[in-house]
Amino acid sequence: MQRVAETCRRLLSERGEANSVAIAADLLDDLLELQADQRLAFFELLEHQFGPDPGQVLQAAQRYAESPNAEHLIQLTAAAEPPRQELLRRLNRAPGGTAGIVSLRRALLGVLKSRPDLAAVEADFQHLLSSWFNAGFLQMEQVDWRSPAALLERIIEHEAVHAIDGWTDLRRRLQPDRRCFAFFHPQLPGEPLIFVEVALLPHMPEAIGPLIDPASASLAPRSFKVATFYSISNCQPGLKGVSLGNFLIKQVAEHLQREFPQLRTFCTLSPIPGLCTWLRGCGDWDARDDLRPRLRERLGRAHALLRSHFGDTLASLPGSFAPEAAPPELREALELLAAHYLGQESVTVRADPVARFHLGNGARLERINWAADVSRKGLKQSLGLMVNYLYDLGEVEERHERFVRGEVVSARRITQKL
Amino acid sequence: MQRVAETCRRLLSERGEANSVAIAADLLDDLLELQADQRLAFFELLEHQFGPDPGQVLQAAQRYAESPNAEHLIQLTAAAEPPRQELLRRLNRAPGGTAGIVSLRRALLGVLKSRPDLAAVEADFQHLLSSWFNAGFLQMEQVDWRSPAALLERIIEHEAVHAIDGWTDLRRRLQPDRRCFAFFHPQLPGEPLIFVEVALLPHMPEAIGPLIDPASASLAPRSFKVATFYSISNCQPGLKGVSLGNFLIKQVAEHLQREFPQLRTFCTLSPIPGLCTWLRGCGDWDARDDLRPRLRERLGRAHALLRSHFGDTLASLPGSFAPEAAPPELREALELLAAHYLGQESVTVRADPVARFHLGNGARLERINWAADVSRKGLKQSLGLMVNYLYDLGEVEERHERFVRGEVVSARRITQKL
Amino acid sequence: MQRVAETCRRLLSERGEANSVAIAADLLDDLLELQADQRLAFFELLEHQFGPDPGQVLQAAQRYAESPNAEHLIQLTAAAEPPRQELLRRLNRAPGGTAGIVSLRRALLGVLKSRPDLAAVEADFQHLLSSWFNAGFLQMEQVDWRSPAALLERIIEHEAVHAIDGWTDLRRRLQPDRRCFAFFHPQLPGEPLIFVEVALLPHMPEAIGPLIDPASASLAPRSFKVATFYSISNCQPGLKGVSLGNFLIKQVAEHLQREFPQLRTFCTLSPIPGLCTWLRGCGDWDARDDLRPRLRERLGRAHALLRSHFGDTLASLPGSFAPEAAPPELREALELLAAHYLGQESVTVRADPVARFHLGNGARLERINWAADVSRKGLKQSLGLMVNYLYDLGEVEERHERFVRGEVVSARRITQKL
Amino acid sequence: MQRVAETCRRLLSERGEANSVAIAADLLDDLLELQADQRLAFFELLEHQFGPDPGQVLQAAQRYAESPNAEHLIQLTAAAEPPRQELLRRLNRAPGGTAGIVSLRRALLGVLKSRPDLAAVEADFQHLLSSWFNAGFLQMEQVDWRSPAALLERIIEHEAVHAIDGWTDLRRRLQPDRRCFAFFHPQLPGEPLIFVEVALLPHMPEAIGPLIDPASASLAPRSFKVATFYSISNCQPGLKGVSLGNFLIKQVAEHLQREFPQLRTFCTLSPIPGLCTWLRGCGDWDARDDLRPRLRERLGRAHALLRSHFGDTLASLPGSFAPEAAPPELREALELLAAHYLGQESVTVRADPVARFHLGNGARLERINWAADVSRKGLKQSLGLMVNYLYDLGEVEERHERFVRGEVVSARRITQKL
Repeated sequence: MQRVAETCRRLLSERGEANSVAIAADLLDDLLELQADQRLAFFELLEHQFGPDPGQVLQAAQRYAESPNAEHLIQLTAAAEPPRQELLRRLNRAPGGTAGIVSLRRALLGVLKSRPDLAAVEADFQHLLSSWFNAGFLQMEQVDWRSPAALLERIIEHEAVHAIDGWTDLRRRLQPDRRCFAFFHPQLPGEPLIFVEVALLPHMPEAIGPLIDPASASLAPRSFKVATFYSISNCQPGLKGVSLGNFLIKQVAEHLQREFPQLRTFCTLSPIPGLCTWLRGCGDWDARDDLRPRLRERLGRAHALLRSHFGDTLASLPGSFAPEAAPPELREALELLAAHYLGQESVTVRADPVARFHLGNGARLERINWAADVSRKGLKQSLGLMVNYLYDLGEVEERHERFVRGEVVSARRITQKL
Repeated sequence: MQRVAETCRRLLSERGEANSVAIAADLLDDLLELQADQRLAFFELLEHQFGPDPGQVLQAAQRYAESPNAEHLIQLTAAAEPPRQELLRRLNRAPGGTAGIVSLRRALLGVLKSRPDLAAVEADFQHLLSSWFNAGFLQMEQVDWRSPAALLERIIEHEAVHAIDGWTDLRRRLQPDRRCFAFFHPQLPGEPLIFVEVALLPHMPEAIGPLIDPASASLAPRSFKVATFYSISNCQPGLKGVSLGNFLIKQVAEHLQREFPQLRTFCTLSPIPGLCTWLRGCGDWDARDDLRPRLRERLGRAHALLRSHFGDTLASLPGSFAPEAAPPELREALELLAAHYLGQESVTVRADPVARFHLGNGARLERINWAADVSRKGLKQSLGLMVNYLYDLGEVEERHERFVRGEVVSARRITQKL
Repeated sequence: MQRVAETCRRLLSERGEANSVAIAADLLDDLLELQADQRLAFFELLEHQFGPDPGQVLQAAQRYAESPNAEHLIQLTAAAEPPRQELLRRLNRAPGGTAGIVSLRRALLGVLKSRPDLAAVEADFQHLLSSWFNAGFLQMEQVDWRSPAALLERIIEHEAVHAIDGWTDLRRRLQPDRRCFAFFHPQLPGEPLIFVEVALLPHMPEAIGPLIDPASASLAPRSFKVATFYSISNCQPGLKGVSLGNFLIKQVAEHLQREFPQLRTFCTLSPIPGLCTWLRGCGDWDARDDLRPRLRERLGRAHALLRSHFGDTLASLPGSFAPEAAPPELREALELLAAHYLGQESVTVRADPVARFHLGNGARLERINWAADVSRKGLKQSLGLMVNYLYDLGEVEERHERFVRGEVVSARRITQKL
Repeated sequence: MQRVAETCRRLLSERGEANSVAIAADLLDDLLELQADQRLAFFELLEHQFGPDPGQVLQAAQRYAESPNAEHLIQLTAAAEPPRQELLRRLNRAPGGTAGIVSLRRALLGVLKSRPDLAAVEADFQHLLSSWFNAGFLQMEQVDWRSPAALLERIIEHEAVHAIDGWTDLRRRLQPDRRCFAFFHPQLPGEPLIFVEVALLPHMPEAIGPLIDPASASLAPRSFKVATFYSISNCQPGLKGVSLGNFLIKQVAEHLQREFPQLRTFCTLSPIPGLCTWLRGCGDWDARDDLRPRLRERLGRAHALLRSHFGDTLASLPGSFAPEAAPPELREALELLAAHYLGQESVTVRADPVARFHLGNGARLERINWAADVSRKGLKQSLGLMVNYLYDLGEVEERHERFVRGEVVSARRITQKL
C-alpha cells in the first residue's frame, strides 16, 4: 500500500505529467492485483489523502461569496474538487484504464454498506463514470446470430429477467421476429454495458411464456405492429447508477420505427418484482388516511381475501399457486391490489424498481396481465402477474414530469378499477 | 436567446432527464446556428445563470470545515460545481454533441481576450473536454496513402510547421521512410485531432530541406536508425490547452520502436519560432546580474556583433540573409545566443513555445543546427537555425521534473558553449 | 528461359501438385522479372510446348464421334484443352497470381499484332480471365471522397473519356449530385477494374461542359430525374475483351434506382470518336446501292456541303471550328450524316466503338446533340457532336438481339431525319 | 423443365448476353426449386443438349491435325468444350450463382452412382469449380471465440473426425493452445469450405483423448514445440474432389511458423479409418508373392494371432476391446499389420483415405500409436490405433513424387519393424 500511495502521489504530481500514461499503467497493474483488504486500504487512502482541504475550500468560498468573479470562481472550483477525481482521470489514461476503474468501483460498491464513510469516494467514481459513459459516447449495436460467440456468451450470462437456458434458447431470441440491442463504449470493446430484448408482435402480449418459447415459429415482418421490450439487463455492476437503460430503450424504439414504419406501439412486458414483498408488508388499511375511503375499504377487503386464501401472514406466498385455476374473486382482488401498488405506492413507497424505472422514463402504466408468468420465479415475485408499460415517445417528457411530481399516468382500464 | 435559455433550463431540469437526448439535439441545433453576438449572449447566460450560488457554497464549505465527513463533502462538491458543467454534459448526449461543444469552445476562446469575465465559463469547457479527450479515449492511427482523401485533405490544411504544397508534396511525406500518425476520438470520426510527421533516417538530421523535398528518394528500412519528429500540428482550435501532443509523441515512439527494433534515437527537428523576436527584445546585458560575468560578457559581445551586422535595432532581421555565406564569427555569435535562449531563457522568460513544449515533455536540448531552414519563414523566425530535441523515454520523467524546477537539460555540446 | 521452362513443367507435373503454391510463387517471381524478349520467348514456349497434341485430339475426337459416351467425351475434353490452361490455373495459386497473369496478358496483347501465331495462347489467357472475372465475382463499390487516396489516384490516371485535371477537378465529380462506381475483384484488392461516372440531373443533358465544370454547384436530390453515364473507363489493359462495362452499367442503374426511386431515365452522354474518321473515309455515295435513293441523294448532298466548307478532302477537319456560329444548313447536314453513321453504319462498318458498346448492350440511339463537346478533342473527333444512348432496362434484351441481327433501335426524332 | 430448357438456351444465346445477369438470376431461382426428379431431368438436359457436337469436333480435330496453327486450335478448343461449361459460367453471374452451382453439383454427385452416363456433366462441374476455388482465390481465416456464432455452429455441425459435443466442447478447442483455421471463398461469405483443428504442444501426441478433453488446462505459449493437425473436415459436399485440404494444411503450417518461430515439428494425429475393414478383407498371405518371404510369414502369423483373439472371421471386431489391457504379443501383431497396411497397402490397394491424403500431400508416415483413440468409433475403425504423419515442408515435394511412383516414405521406427 505504501508503494501504491507513492505512485498515486507521483501520478498526480507535476512530475507525473510528463509520463503519466506509463505511471498510470503501472498503478493500474498494482491496483488490479490488490486483495480485498488492500483494496479497502486503497479506498481509505483516497478518502483520507485525496479529498479537498476544508480550510482552503472555506477560504475560496468566502472570497467567492464576497466577490463572485471569474478568478474566484475558478479558484473555488479547483479547491472544492476532490483531487482523487484528477487522480482517476489520470489513471484512465492507462491502456485498459476505463475497465479498471469500472472494476474498482464494483469492489467499492460491495463494501459501501459497511463503510458509509467511503460514500464521497464512491460519489467521485460515479461522477466521472457518468461523464465518460455519457449517452453521446455510447454506441448501440444489434446483437444477432452473426455476433461473436464471446459476446453472445455475455448475453446468456447477464440476462437477469428471464434466464437464457443455453445457446438453443438464445437462438430463438435472435430470430427475425426478435431483436436484441446493446450499448457499447469505445473503451470497453466487445463488452456489452446493457442490453434489451425485443419481440415484434401483432398485439400487445399478455404472457411471457410464448415470447421465450424456443420452439415457437418466427413471425413474418408484415404482421409486426407492436414492439415489446420484454427484458432489459445490465452487464456491468461497476456502472450501477449510471443512466443507460432510459437511453437504450428510446434509441431502440427510434431505430425500430425507422426499420418498420408500420409499428404502432412500443411497450414492455415487465415483471412486478416487489409485489409479494409489498403484500406481505402492507398492514393496516384502516389507518391509511391518504386514501379515499371507498378505495381504502376495497383494498382492505381484497387484502383480507388474500389472507383467507394464502394464510394469515402471507408469510410465504406459495410458488405452487396456479393462477389459471384461481377463483374469479381472487383474481379481482389481486389485480386491484396490483393496480394500487403500481399506480400509487410505487411513487410514494418506492417499492418496485421496475415500475419506477419505466414510469420514471415517462412510460404509462398500461395493462396488468393475469397468469402472465407462471414460472416459479414469476409466482414467487408476483403470483404470476405481469404488466405492460407503454412508451409513447411524444409523451414521455410530460409523463416523466408528472411522475416526478408524484403522479403515475395510467391507462383508463387501470384507473377505472381504482 | 429567450428560447435557448428556456431549453437550457429544461434540459437541466428533472423533467428534461426523461428525454434529454431529444432536448439536447434541439438545443444543439439552435446553438450551432447562432450569430456571433447571440453566441456571446449565450456565453453570458452560462456565466450569469449557470454558475454556483455563492451563499450555498459558503454554507456547504462551512459545514464541511466544521465536520469534514462524506455527507458534507458530497454536498459541497455538488454546491461548488457550476451547473453549466452538467448542462454541457447533457448537451453532449445529442448526436454530434461533442463536435458541437468543441466548436462552441472555439468561438468562446475567440472572444476571451476582450471578455475576461468569461474565463470561468471557459475553464468549465476546458475541464470537461480534458476529461473527455483523456489519453485513454484517444485512438492513434497511421495516416498513409490508403487513408481517405477527406482525411488527407485535412492534413494538408492543418500542417502548421512546414506547409504541404498539395497532393504531390503530401505524397512524399507518406512514403515508406516517412510516417504520419494522428489521434482520433470516437465521437469525432474521421476528424484528426493532432498529427505528427516522422522521418526515418540513418542520422539525426541537420536541415529540414532534404526531409521535405518531394523529389527525394525513399530510404530502405535497414538504414533506419533515427526517428525524427519534424512536424506536429493541432487540427482543433476548440481543443486548445487539452494535452494531446505529449501523449502522441510518446505513443508514436513506442509504436515505432516495436515496428523497427533497430531504432536507437528519437528526436525532433524543430523550429525556434521565438528567436528573432527575443533577439530584438533583449536589451542591456550589463544589467543581467543573474548571469555569470563571463557568460554575460560573451553574450553582450555576440549581440553587439549581430547589431553591427544587421543594424542597430535589429528592427527587421532580413529574410534575405544567406547563412551558408555568413562569416564564421557571426555563426559563432548566433549559436551562442541561441544556446542561451533555448537553454535558459526558455524557462524563465517563456518565450519559445516549441522549446517549452518539448522540454516540458521531458526532452533534452540536443543540438543547434546552422542553416537548417533557409526558407523565408525560417530566416525570419530564427535566421535559419533549427534545433534537435532528444526524447529518451527512460529519462523523460526526471527531465520533466528538472524542467519544472527551472532547469533545462542540455547535451554536453551545448552546455560547453555557455 | 531454360529455368522457366523447367519450372513450368515441374508445376504442371504430378510432382508439382504437392507443393504447387510454392512452385507457382517461384515461377511468378521469375516471369515478372523477364525482359521483353524473354517474355516473348515464354509466350513461344507456351505456344510450342503447352498446346494439345494433334494426334491425341484426333484419336479422341474419332472415338467420341464413333461412340459419343461420357467416357469418350471426358477423354476428348481433356485431350483438346491446351495444357497451358492448367499451367495458368496453377500459376494463379501463387500469392498475387491473378495480378501477375493479368500483367502477362497485357504484354502478350502488346505483341499480338506482330505475332499472330500467338493468337491461340492469347485465347487461352482470355478464356481463363473471362471465367475468373465473371460478373458473379465482381464487387461493385462506390468511389467517393472518403475513398483511399491511392484509389482516387488510379481514377484520375485512368479516366479515358474526359480527362480529370487533378484533385480539385476530381472532387467536383464526387459531389452529392455525381456518382462514381467501380468494379473490384477479390484477388486485386484496391485495384479498380473499370469505373463509370454518373451525373444526377433534372433533364437529359445536351452538352458535357456543364457536367464537368469544377465550379458548378451541386444539385439537391429532389431534382434528380435522370441518371447520365458520362464516362466509362477501363483500368486494366490486361483484361481487354473481358466483358465488364455492360454489367457495371446495369448494376449501377439498378443501384441508383433503389437509392432514388424518382429516377425516370437512364442514359449516357457519349462521344462519337469515329465520326470524323468515317467522314473522311466514306466516298462515293452514288455507288451505295444498299441505301434508299432519296436518302443516298440527301447524304451525298450533305457530304458535298461539308467538303465545300472544310475543303475537298476533309483532310484535317479543323479543331478550330466553332459549332455555335456555324450556318444552319451545315448543322443540318452534319446531323444527318451523324444519324446515318450511328444508326446504320455502326452495324455494318463497325466504325464507332462507343456506339457499338452501348447499342450492343441493348441501349437505344436517343438524341444527337449539337455543340455538345467543344473541347479540342471533341471538335477533332466529331466536330463537337455528342449523343445520348438510352438504357431502358426492360427493353435491353430485345434491343440487343435486334442489334445482333443488324438493326439499330433509334428514337423517332432520329429515324424521321433519315 | 420445358421452361428451364428454354431459359438455358436463352442465357447461352447471343441475345442473352445483353442481360445475362437477370436471366441467370431467373434460371437459378427455377433450378433451386426443382424437385429431385426434375433436377435429374435438368442434368439429362445438360448431357443431351449442351455437349459438343461429335461431327464438328472431329472436323476441327482433323483440320488441326493437318495444319496445327493458331486459328485451327482456337476453333478446335471452341468445338471441343462442352457448351454447358459456358452455360454454367453465365449462371455463375447471378447473385448467389456460385453457391447455387455448388449445391447443384452436390445433387448431381448424389445420383452419379446410379447414372454413370452423367459423368461427363459432372466432370464439367468439377472442372469449373476447381478453377473458381483455385487456391489463389481462397482466403484463410482463423476461427476463434470472437467468430460469429453462425460460423461456429457450422464448425460444430461439420466436424467429421472427432465430433464436437456442443458449445462447451467447442470452446476448449478454441483456447489459446488450440487453433482452428478455415478457408473461405469471396462468393460464399460466412461459409467455411474446409477447416483444420490444431493443437500446440510440447511433444508429438500419442493419444487423442487429452487433446479434446474439455476439462484440460490451456498450455502456455513458451512450451509450444509441436503443431499437431488433429482434425480436418470438409464443409461443402458440393466441392468434393476440389483440392482444398493440401493447401490449407501448408498455409496453416506457414502461418503458425511465423507466429511461433520456436515450433520445430508439424504433424498430424490421424485415425486409420480403413484398418479393420482391410484386416477383415485381406486373406491368403501365402499367395502374396509380391512380399518378401520373411515379411509375408510374419504378417501371416500376426493375422493368425488376431484371428485366434477375435474369432476366425474377424466378422465383427469388438468395440468393447480394451487396448490398455491387451497382451503384448497382440499389440505387436497389430502394430506390424498396421505398419504394413499404411506403409505399403495404402499405395497399392488405396484402402485408407486419410493415409492417401497425407502421404499424397508429401507427409511422412511417422509413428503408430497404441491405445490412441479408445472411443467406440476409434475401436471399431482401428482397434484404437492412430498414426502421426509428419509434414516437413522442405521435403513434401520430393516425398509426394515418391508416393506417386509407389513408395511410402516412413520413419525408421516403422521401416525397421517390417
